[in-house]
Amino acid sequence: MEPVTIWTYDWVPAGPRGFVRDLRLRWACREAGLTYTVATVRFEDRETGHLDRQPFGQVPFLEDGEVRLFESGAALLHLAERSEVLMPRDPAGRADVLQWTIAALNSVELVTLPWWYLAIRGDADNGVTGWMAQRLDHLERELAQRDWLAAGRFTVADIVMADVLRVKRVRAFGSRPATEAYVARVTARPAFAAALAEQMEHFETADRARATGGD
Amino acid sequence: MEPVTIWTYDWVPAGPRGFVRDLRLRWACREAGLTYTVATVRFEDRETGHLDRQPFGQVPFLEDGEVRLFESGAALLHLAERSEVLMPRDPAGRADVLQWTIAALNSVELVTLPWWYLAIRGDADNGVTGWMAQRLDHLERELAQRDWLAAGRFTVADIVMADVLRVKRVRAFGSRPATEAYVARVTARPAFAAALAEQMEHFETADRARATGGD
Repeated sequence: MEPVTIWTYDWVPAGPRGFVRDLRLRWACREAGLTYTVATVRFEDRETGHLDRQPFGQVPFLEDGEVRLFESGAALLHLAERSEVLMPRDPAGRADVLQWTIAALNSVELVTLPWWYLAIRGDADNGVTGWMAQRLDHLERELAQRDWLAAGRFTVADIVMADVLRVKRVRAFGSRPATEAYVARVTARPAFAAALAEQMEHFETADRARATGGD
Repeated sequence: MEPVTIWTYDWVPAGPRGFVRDLRLRWACREAGLTYTVATVRFEDRETGHLDRQPFGQVPFLEDGEVRLFESGAALLHLAERSEVLMPRDPAGRADVLQWTIAALNSVELVTLPWWYLAIRGDADNGVTGWMAQRLDHLERELAQRDWLAAGRFTVADIVMADVLRVKRVRAFGSRPATEAYVARVTARPAFAAALAEQMEHFETADRARATGGD
């Protein structure tokens, strides 16, 4: 099969490194044994330069032959169609993976990301803290019952959910041991470590190019 | 084909009526010509009674034969697999619908719903207002270019995006004529009107049962 192309920024400041969402796609490809190349858009031009390719000025986007997708969640569901490692093929297993992937994006990250957005602007005890605690409590109840979110095994749903939850500040409110164990379990996978190291190296290479006058 | 079952609450207060997300599924089924029945869980017990069926205590969830899904976004993508009316079958068209459905859930609603959550608690000019305005501006740029979000025609992506955007307070900041025209265009579809009327009638019937001593 042809390699896919993962698009990310050419460079980002130190803060978001390790959390730019191209990591989700690198991780998924590595789990699935899909080969990929990485291409870049300029971070400095993100508001003007690549809106034609990503309408919200974000990364990542994915190219797979003639298909191009933005939204990391959409790209992950697309990759899941290419590999059973990421999603089983039976209808019940597929539905389970689909519902938990969407839950990570639309029930958990929908609260944790706005909470974090307010928190880094100085208000960690903000108007969505209670709502976030409730969602995380519900999730803790689920994670206390099993090792993986969906289909009785690791799937793409775990990539999204663990990537949402591994933001430590988000988990700083309350004690949720099953959630802690879950994040440790999913991020202990070699494909996560490799994807993380690769993203860090990508931006460090950009630093070196800048330092030597490259662009 | 066997009818699907859409699960919703038996009753809700006046505020959320017309916006409970079973509407998204009723609407999609009507567009696709899929028959459905409606089943209910008790609103009063939502925190304790149906967490085994919906881990976040929400509705809707969908039953389709042996498959059950929670998360309206997941249920809609599942229904889209059952009808080409909701999603084309060519890879590029599928990818376009998938990315815009996820964009509605994870780039737009991820900001508009927390904004609304803070606004109804008294703070309409809250910490996410600027972020929301930026996302809506990006979307306006897209909607100025075409009538439907994905694949050059109405798809399930329009159901989700229009349902997110039809919350009027969300659109009260700034002037975005293409977005206004888009919401009017999508919600002018007969299947939307029918789904809305059906949801209102569902809860009004519950009011009458309560008034006559039923439960």
